[in-house]
Amino acid sequence: MNPKQLAGEKAVEFIKEGMTVGLGTGSTVYFTVLKLSEQIKEGLQIKAVCTSVATHKLAVSLNIPVLSMEEVDKIDLTIDGADEIDPNGHGIKGRWGALLFEKIVAANSKQNIWVVDDSKIVEQLGKFPLPVEVIPFGYKQVVKRFIELGFNPELRMEGQETFKTDSANFIIQLNLGKIDDPVELDRLLKQIPGVVEHGLFTNIVNKAVVADLSNIRIINYR
Amino acid sequence: MNPKQLAGEKAVEFIKEGMTVGLGTGSTVYFTVLKLSEQIKEGLQIKAVCTSVATHKLAVSLNIPVLSMEEVDKIDLTIDGADEIDPNGHGIKGRWGALLFEKIVAANSKQNIWVVDDSKIVEQLGKFPLPVEVIPFGYKQVVKRFIELGFNPELRMEGQETFKTDSANFIIQLNLGKIDDPVELDRLLKQIPGVVEHGLFTNIVNKAVVADLSNIRIINYR
Repeated sequence: MNPKQLAGEKAVEFIKEGMTVGLGTGSTVYFTVLKLSEQIKEGLQIKAVCTSVATHKLAVSLNIPVLSMEEVDKIDLTIDGADEIDPNGHGIKGRWGALLFEKIVAANSKQNIWVVDDSKIVEQLGKFPLPVEVIPFGYKQVVKRFIELGFNPELRMEGQETFKTDSANFIIQLNLGKIDDPVELDRLLKQIPGVVEHGLFTNIVNKAVVADLSNIRIINYR
Repeated sequence: MNPKQLAGEKAVEFIKEGMTVGLGTGSTVYFTVLKLSEQIKEGLQIKAVCTSVATHKLAVSLNIPVLSMEEVDKIDLTIDGADEIDPNGHGIKGRWGALLFEKIVAANSKQNIWVVDDSKIVEQLGKFPLPVEVIPFGYKQVVKRFIELGFNPELRMEGQETFKTDSANFIIQLNLGKIDDPVELDRLLKQIPGVVEHGLFTNIVNKAVVADLSNIRIINYR
């Protein structure tokens, strides 16, 4: 089986009857959503909250009961993908442009599990571009600031158009190479006016479900 | 003359030929914009950047040459109002809901001047409600967090509707009474996922132009 499918399906074991479950966005959590829909057909009762328009559509098409964030009190467990995870459980997320809603859901979840194939487990974050969601008004000044800081920024495009998030913001990708202190960078980025959110998720994930072609392992971070 | 007009008009003296000028939003800076348009009629050459749709409309109607934030390299001077200013020059802004664009413009200005009537000069910030701009997705969780923190949050309404900012976000007003450490609160608020920006402007303003019914004084902060 492919590692994404192995990890994505395995994580469904952590979903228990009656839970409110956050569903992430991406190619691994896609298999979590499929597997979950099977269990719901077999009688599992849960409610879901989605981190993107794309996941919302998928869940609804599979008859998963979906609530809006306004309707939930607390999320019990969120399952999401990640682009990189370091040994401290800090990660880069947001490849699919859904980082803002993903972080809001994660921050309001009692437990967070990330499902990844083995290639996402790294010694140090930063090879993967770090997405930063910015307000369109004045975004060029933020790009300039990132250039001054040596962050190698790049505006995300979609064909000839600037890519727009579900909140109609832009994404600037930072090509950092390596991130020495993720917690410090997290704070620095958030302090810049115009930055709405970024894809560094520090001190958030509790477990990772990691798979290669034949094995699955669980890593506990906190 | 009324104090708002006195302060607003006085500030125009700091605008020099050739400058790119940020124009704020509100009932005091309104007089700055009027006076500036007179000087432009008399030959002053400047370019303006506006912090809100409202100010943009006003400036255009007065034939002030307006650039978008994307067209400017650096802003030389921004003149804006404030709701409260403490002795360290930290302030609360955003009464008119334009705090996000105001902070982006301020952060990219070499100099910032606030124009206020004397009632805005306070010993401690916090009597005035502090506006926080939040993403609609999950805003109820942010409200809940503010309640837990004892911040007395209140969603800003416009008649029966939730007030929407120029970026289509919501405003949560915090009724704090007093703010002991504005710099710490600034950082804390920005770290909460879903918070886009807030009305605490710390370490930003250089000067205030303050007027009562008959006198004008200039306070230099940094």
